[in-house]
Amino acid sequence: MKILVINPNSDPVMTDVIRKTAEQFAGGEFEVICKHTPGAPSFIDSYKDESRIAPGMIRLLTEHESEVDGFVIACQDDPNLDVMKELTPKPVVGIAEASMKIASMLGHRFSIVSTSRPSIPNHEVLARKYHLQDALTSVRAPGDEVKNLSEEEKFTATARAAIEEDMAEVIVLGCAGMADLAKRMQENLGVPVLDPVVCGLIIARGLIQVGVGTSKIGRYRPREV
Amino acid sequence: MKILVINPNSDPVMTDVIRKTAEQFAGGEFEVICKHTPGAPSFIDSYKDESRIAPGMIRLLTEHESEVDGFVIACQDDPNLDVMKELTPKPVVGIAEASMKIASMLGHRFSIVSTSRPSIPNHEVLARKYHLQDALTSVRAPGDEVKNLSEEEKFTATARAAIEEDMAEVIVLGCAGMADLAKRMQENLGVPVLDPVVCGLIIARGLIQVGVGTSKIGRYRPREV
Amino acid sequence: MKILVINPNSDPVMTDVIRKTAEQFAGGEFEVICKHTPGAPSFIDSYKDESRIAPGMIRLLTEHESEVDGFVIACQDDPNLDVMKELTPKPVVGIAEASMKIASMLGHRFSIVSTSRPSIPNHEVLARKYHLQDALTSVRAPGDEVKNLSEEEKFTATARAAIEEDMAEVIVLGCAGMADLAKRMQENLGVPVLDPVVCGLIIARGLIQVGVGTSKIGRYRPREV
Amino acid sequence: MKILVINPNSDPVMTDVIRKTAEQFAGGEFEVICKHTPGAPSFIDSYKDESRIAPGMIRLLTEHESEVDGFVIACQDDPNLDVMKELTPKPVVGIAEASMKIASMLGHRFSIVSTSRPSIPNHEVLARKYHLQDALTSVRAPGDEVKNLSEEEKFTATARAAIEEDMAEVIVLGCAGMADLAKRMQENLGVPVLDPVVCGLIIARGLIQVGVGTSKIGRYRPREV
Amino acid sequence: MKILVINPNSDPVMTDVIRKTAEQFAGGEFEVICKHTPGAPSFIDSYKDESRIAPGMIRLLTEHESEVDGFVIACQDDPNLDVMKELTPKPVVGIAEASMKIASMLGHRFSIVSTSRPSIPNHEVLARKYHLQDALTSVRAPGDEVKNLSEEEKFTATARAAIEEDMAEVIVLGCAGMADLAKRMQENLGVPVLDPVVCGLIIARGLIQVGVGTSKIGRYRPREV
Amino acid sequence: MKILVINPNSDPVMTDVIRKTAEQFAGGEFEVICKHTPGAPSFIDSYKDESRIAPGMIRLLTEHESEVDGFVIACQDDPNLDVMKELTPKPVVGIAEASMKIASMLGHRFSIVSTSRPSIPNHEVLARKYHLQDALTSVRAPGDEVKNLSEEEKFTATARAAIEEDMAEVIVLGCAGMADLAKRMQENLGVPVLDPVVCGLIIARGLIQVGVGTSKIGRYRPREV
Repeated sequence: MKILVINPNSDPVMTDVIRKTAEQFAGGEFEVICKHTPGAPSFIDSYKDESRIAPGMIRLLTEHESEVDGFVIACQDDPNLDVMKELTPKPVVGIAEASMKIASMLGHRFSIVSTSRPSIPNHEVLARKYHLQDALTSVRAPGDEVKNLSEEEKFTATARAAIEEDMAEVIVLGCAGMADLAKRMQENLGVPVLDPVVCGLIIARGLIQVGVGTSKIGRYRPREV
Repeated sequence: MKILVINPNSDPVMTDVIRKTAEQFAGGEFEVICKHTPGAPSFIDSYKDESRIAPGMIRLLTEHESEVDGFVIACQDDPNLDVMKELTPKPVVGIAEASMKIASMLGHRFSIVSTSRPSIPNHEVLARKYHLQDALTSVRAPGDEVKNLSEEEKFTATARAAIEEDMAEVIVLGCAGMADLAKRMQENLGVPVLDPVVCGLIIARGLIQVGVGTSKIGRYRPREV
Repeated sequence: MKILVINPNSDPVMTDVIRKTAEQFAGGEFEVICKHTPGAPSFIDSYKDESRIAPGMIRLLTEHESEVDGFVIACQDDPNLDVMKELTPKPVVGIAEASMKIASMLGHRFSIVSTSRPSIPNHEVLARKYHLQDALTSVRAPGDEVKNLSEEEKFTATARAAIEEDMAEVIVLGCAGMADLAKRMQENLGVPVLDPVVCGLIIARGLIQVGVGTSKIGRYRPREV
Repeated sequence: MKILVINPNSDPVMTDVIRKTAEQFAGGEFEVICKHTPGAPSFIDSYKDESRIAPGMIRLLTEHESEVDGFVIACQDDPNLDVMKELTPKPVVGIAEASMKIASMLGHRFSIVSTSRPSIPNHEVLARKYHLQDALTSVRAPGDEVKNLSEEEKFTATARAAIEEDMAEVIVLGCAGMADLAKRMQENLGVPVLDPVVCGLIIARGLIQVGVGTSKIGRYRPREV
Repeated sequence: MKILVINPNSDPVMTDVIRKTAEQFAGGEFEVICKHTPGAPSFIDSYKDESRIAPGMIRLLTEHESEVDGFVIACQDDPNLDVMKELTPKPVVGIAEASMKIASMLGHRFSIVSTSRPSIPNHEVLARKYHLQDALTSVRAPGDEVKNLSEEEKFTATARAAIEEDMAEVIVLGCAGMADLAKRMQENLGVPVLDPVVCGLIIARGLIQVGVGTSKIGRYRPREV
Repeated sequence: MKILVINPNSDPVMTDVIRKTAEQFAGGEFEVICKHTPGAPSFIDSYKDESRIAPGMIRLLTEHESEVDGFVIACQDDPNLDVMKELTPKPVVGIAEASMKIASMLGHRFSIVSTSRPSIPNHEVLARKYHLQDALTSVRAPGDEVKNLSEEEKFTATARAAIEEDMAEVIVLGCAGMADLAKRMQENLGVPVLDPVVCGLIIARGLIQVGVGTSKIGRYRPREV
């Protein structure tokens, strides 16, 4: 089994974090290829970014389609997920969709801890798209009051606020680049903390193994060229 | 890794189907124990059945907790899922919840093909509980018009009606005992057909592997004895 | 007319409060039998408790079915309500369902004042089950800041916060054992304060009187033994 | 205890049906006054009718307020319910709200059997207003195919279609004037059939007895004259 | 083209504000008649007010129907909107419905800035009626802490709180009489601020121009006299 | 005032239909520029098409931004609407969003008459995105049974089925290229038939006139280059 993990941005550091996470999860049982998107900006932060990276993402999918068994889109905005699902019968998993659906199985309500306040609306838009607006109790991002803390401390403090003030029972990390924080945050906070990349891999590996992919008869049907 | 798959009923044939499915999915990469529930009826069909099998299910969980890493409840009614989640910090996955959440990732709308018309309301109740009432286009069960067909033909005809009349893009099998039908139905129908037992295992294995379980701070918190 | 009011726990003091409330409501116009559940813990606080008391509750129902005309389950968690509805064509009323549905008729939004913070998720789960999540503005429980007050002062302060901060217009008491507080809290707060036991009796008595019970053709159909 | 049942139209026959129903329900245990609305048309069928009868309904409420303990608005459109709730702290119960909320306690889904097809949208509007759109499986009215049948046969046939085709488990009669049909239809159909007038009385009597009325601090607060 | 703008109250100052706003919007391209409602109170604040002004509003509609091409109801409570839609095939636009629907097109979530706290529930009721409860992040009204400020300062401060604390991206003014504030508040706040009267005119003028009005076959069908 | 109407595809015939519709609506009172999208396919039918036309649409917006006052995206899939809203503070109106929101103001429920069955899921996706899933009663497309009819007859027959079987009170045309059919279909069907291009222009012209555009502080905030 071989999975292509697409980092929609072009940041080599983030690609490395994602690759390391993915390979560690694969543990040699299946193969993971992790690619950043050619021509992409170093951070995906807007609908324009999403639009601009579509050709690169599609090229990655097309070039690797015969070689791999499925795809993971490794960005918490699930950029271009619908078009990627449309282009192949093989499984394509968005990490936002996967992590929110798994989070909703682990407790009454979950919160997303995001990198920055402006990204909050988009996480809410996705939660609604995936039918989970009532299971999402809040999206929070570190504010100015924690700006002098380390990344890990910032996100931990933000998650703690979600737990205490919004009654979040599960935390979903709001960025693919936070993968290495999940375990330690979980230990500190005492609640499940989901790294979305891993959530995407859980679903993708499973679907591939049982031979199930995207339905091709309706919303994601193939088109003649 | 070791997973206990609990068949909530006591039917040895169904337990065998489930075990075979589970072992085939595990493929030797992890261990699966499959147990029927002591004292359970041969088919779970009512709230009374659910209530009556709770002690047996709890006993199975308690007896195996130290030995296994997670649990799958292998019945499309997700009987006693909340109490099972409450009793252990280890992952407990209901196959109805897992299969509906995975189905919603593979197409616009899914249908559940159930064994009998009287079970329809309960599937709808669960879809709503899991926030997926808008992604579920119908629950269908074979009617009298197909009563002379084989099981496989019956469910295939019912699924086809869901596809054609309700615009279902994905089919979820409505019973743990249908596992061996999924592959052939998928080939015949040309849409993803989900065996719920396998869906449960996909999630359970993933959660175990990354060390995440049910949140224990709120809805499923542990209680002192 | 005779109604069996089942206290799902085994606390004799709470059973007495419930009985007194019920008898006062009945006022001699109909008969009320109030029973605690044999083998139940003194307080219902978990899914496990719910599961564990099912046999006792079922036994109470079965033993009294020929003798009484309907049932009230007197616990704000509505434990085992679905199975009880399934077991008899006679009316079975959960006090959570009855009190939330009545509350939604008396003002724009209601709050539930619960005994303890950990019980909050379950009240939210029930509000959603009964379609009233948008009519429920909050569930609140007394926090540490009021721990030195009397029970009545605590719940009154908590209700006042719901009125002022969450714009609650109606208060639903979150426990069957608070019955004797309702009247005084209503006077102090100037909003309707609903004792759930009485709400359950309002519905049960009415249904019995007009000869209507649970529908037995679908979700709660009887099963052959 | 004394309840004023307001028939929003001026049809003396329908007023008699409602009065008989109400008195039979009261059974001498409380007093029922049943009034038609002065200046109203003989049938309420439009927003204009609703608007036009408001002064008459308000006058009835005002004239009787000191004398009675609560009010029932006996029309399945719940005309002017909000203004009536606003004008008095005493309970005001709309029979549509009461019957739909009670119906949702007796089975998975209910249908409303209405007098005519054009009234269907308004029943749907009310179901949504009362948060019950997901519990309402259909509103049906007799069509041309049954026009030669008796009233009772018509509504029975319509209800049967709702049961068989829409999986309704409970039937709510769509007009206050159908009260005398409920019992026989229930016997014929084998599901609960709710007469809405009686549902309104169940709630009103209960609220009066326990001294609870409409919340006067928000949506229905009193205004200075 | 000629539009009748109905001010449901009788305040000549507010009527003048509305007329000025409407005429400025019309800019001579179409004709606007602006009328206060005969017999109405000077401020609409209750369901009773709504009921009481219905005859006057209906008379205005009837008297002008042959002369004008459409109607705008210029009050943020949309009083009697359904009956007005029912009485004519020509477009009738409520400014609450128009402004909320337009607001939802301009940003992720909007807030309504209302004149007083007691009016908050009704704005929420309307948002739900128009399917926009999830797009409405809050309704706010100036509290005591700003009581010494000018009207403009008050509403600006209230809107700012909605932006900062509720993440509102768009502000809808909660009263037809605030029209002259919209522009300056928009400049100060840096977000779209919608004057509802103008929103109503946008929709009404457009519908008239293309010859579309209220559907007369169902909910708003005409009735024989 | 000048509005750029962007036809997302490259079909000159459809561009002409749209231009004619737009100019007729503008009636010389404001200027309309109508452009097809360079490099686009002749028909937009997939997520891939949407992705592929983004650069052309963005270029059109960028090139004309200083010259025009607002934009209309003239395709019933609202392709790339979010990115277009993000790129300019000037109004950008999607005709799907505009037509559905206007439709919901004209009757109880509306149907979309689409060009082909495979496009149905996407219309449903958009209705949900715009919060109108409960106001949409159906999306229908002509089936094989009408394949020998003219375009106008096909869509009229399909709309009639929506009216009769789904109780649609308003029809929304499912394609920008159907503009010339709206008027005649409305006359034949006796219900409002909305041409979506015109709906988009109604909103765009209105927003421009009052100086309101997309909120730039949250979901559609500008980014530094």
